[in-house]
Amino acid sequence: MSGANNEFDLIARIRTRAGTRDDVLLGIGDDAAILRMPAGHDLVVSTDTLNIGVHFPPDTAPSDIGWKALAVNLSDLAAMGATPAWCTLNLTLPEANSGWLDAFLDGFLELAALHDVALVGGDTTRGPLSITVTVHGFVPHGAALRRSGAQVGDDVWISGTVGDAAAGLALHGQATRNLRERLDRPTPRIALGLALRDNASACIDVSDGLLADLGHVVLASHVGAEVDVALLPISGELLDAFDATSRIAMQLGGGDDYELCFTAAPARAADVTAAAKRAGVVVTRIGRIEAQTGLRVRGADGVVREAQANGYRHFDTPRDEAWQP
Amino acid sequence: MSGANNEFDLIARIRTRAGTRDDVLLGIGDDAAILRMPAGHDLVVSTDTLNIGVHFPPDTAPSDIGWKALAVNLSDLAAMGATPAWCTLNLTLPEANSGWLDAFLDGFLELAALHDVALVGGDTTRGPLSITVTVHGFVPHGAALRRSGAQVGDDVWISGTVGDAAAGLALHGQATRNLRERLDRPTPRIALGLALRDNASACIDVSDGLLADLGHVVLASHVGAEVDVALLPISGELLDAFDATSRIAMQLGGGDDYELCFTAAPARAADVTAAAKRAGVVVTRIGRIEAQTGLRVRGADGVVREAQANGYRHFDTPRDEAWQP
Repeated sequence: MSGANNEFDLIARIRTRAGTRDDVLLGIGDDAAILRMPAGHDLVVSTDTLNIGVHFPPDTAPSDIGWKALAVNLSDLAAMGATPAWCTLNLTLPEANSGWLDAFLDGFLELAALHDVALVGGDTTRGPLSITVTVHGFVPHGAALRRSGAQVGDDVWISGTVGDAAAGLALHGQATRNLRERLDRPTPRIALGLALRDNASACIDVSDGLLADLGHVVLASHVGAEVDVALLPISGELLDAFDATSRIAMQLGGGDDYELCFTAAPARAADVTAAAKRAGVVVTRIGRIEAQTGLRVRGADGVVREAQANGYRHFDTPRDEAWQP
Repeated sequence: MSGANNEFDLIARIRTRAGTRDDVLLGIGDDAAILRMPAGHDLVVSTDTLNIGVHFPPDTAPSDIGWKALAVNLSDLAAMGATPAWCTLNLTLPEANSGWLDAFLDGFLELAALHDVALVGGDTTRGPLSITVTVHGFVPHGAALRRSGAQVGDDVWISGTVGDAAAGLALHGQATRNLRERLDRPTPRIALGLALRDNASACIDVSDGLLADLGHVVLASHVGAEVDVALLPISGELLDAFDATSRIAMQLGGGDDYELCFTAAPARAADVTAAAKRAGVVVTRIGRIEAQTGLRVRGADGVVREAQANGYRHFDTPRDEAWQP
């Protein structure tokens, strides 16, 4: 009550800027939000926590932290083929700093507006900087994409390019603006996820690394996969900045790209590329689903080797893995 | 991948114990959960973060932390008159300690089972101990209780007794088991919230203190209220442990009781007490809604004084306020 930067002021700042939608019957300002689901749809819910020094470098701009906190969650909805609708925001801050909050909201709400996502509630607490976002979206009954639908013989596809965020992190101050943006301002592939609902057999977003996440797909689908290094899409910046060994390691193992890795029957290939074109995203066929479990990588030398899913993960490394959603 | 306590082991432990419901189409294990809403109902969503040393004393048993993390969220659903259904759990832990996690889940899942709440997803990350829970429930279209419905002339009611959690905190090691349980294992008043849907005009849960939370009701309803200290329900333990001045301060200002404070037309008084009896909770009339804004307290001396809403809040104190939901 006493200062200009106390928590009620923070809440008032958030509430003023939160935006709304017709299906938000009650947003910020009560014990809970009241939301109206469209008939014939299922609710899709995902949540992720971002901690300073773990999920973003300490020098990350507050507006980029805000963008990324929402982006990584929307990316999960994209992987399900869901239409985003609402989110909540739990902010733990070391101090009530309205300047920091305003900048954070600049990035967060810029991305929210792009996808018509209403911020309907949350919580502010004091402690080491930590951000939890929970997102809610819809899919028509039974239409959601899952990790578990990959079939033997399906093509393995990836959107965009992979390894860029890892390159942005490795190069840090020396990164090109594009590579740093791949790390700080990932693009959730919402339109692609929607376009793939009728075409893909399984889908996941690449948060922990291509092999790690494809590993989740083949495990959930009780199949295996071979990925061909020669087919992996690569950005010009990544090509310029690293030798082949480093590049391939980043493409296969680097996290934080938030591209969609998905599978589809070969007969669907033309539909897949047409759907991706409508969504404004390039997609590339990078491998094949096989009956033999596990992951194999065909190297630049043409030799196929067993692969370790080698992404960021758990408490063995300074990174987490969302255990869903 | 290497240790017995890495994150995938934590996730596997959580997933094995999470339980489910028929309306959970997809729970833990994909990019998001898929949930089926009942027809004719609205979705009610609330979220709260608990940080060590702020929302619970550092010596709190892990099972009690688990209980409380869910209880404070279910209490928000109770205040809306919602039926709980699903929750997500974001756990930030200093280390991957499966013993701690098992004990935490003991308390969390014990309360979840009592209210048929399925744990459908979440996230585990590394950092200072922090827990975010997001709960989802249903209400029939338009039936939710809100803070904003209090009418001039309504009675002000409170469930149970107030000040006990504050007493448990103040007495710490000297607290009776009951007072310490009020602090560590609050009871979300779900059945009462449901029973009040047809009878109450406004409702809130007492997390920040009776006056602070009643202050939110009168502000949202554009009215005021007078509370009579002589009418405040009190536990025998609180009566025994403190003098009158301390007791009254705890009853009016102490947080963490998670009772429901609600308003109802005087003509509804018999219905309210009957509904509370069905819900197995004692409710007490403690004041009246008035046209004059602000809060007033009638003291034991019969003198009415203007009151400061004096609960825990913001960054002025080591406590937060949920800014909703």
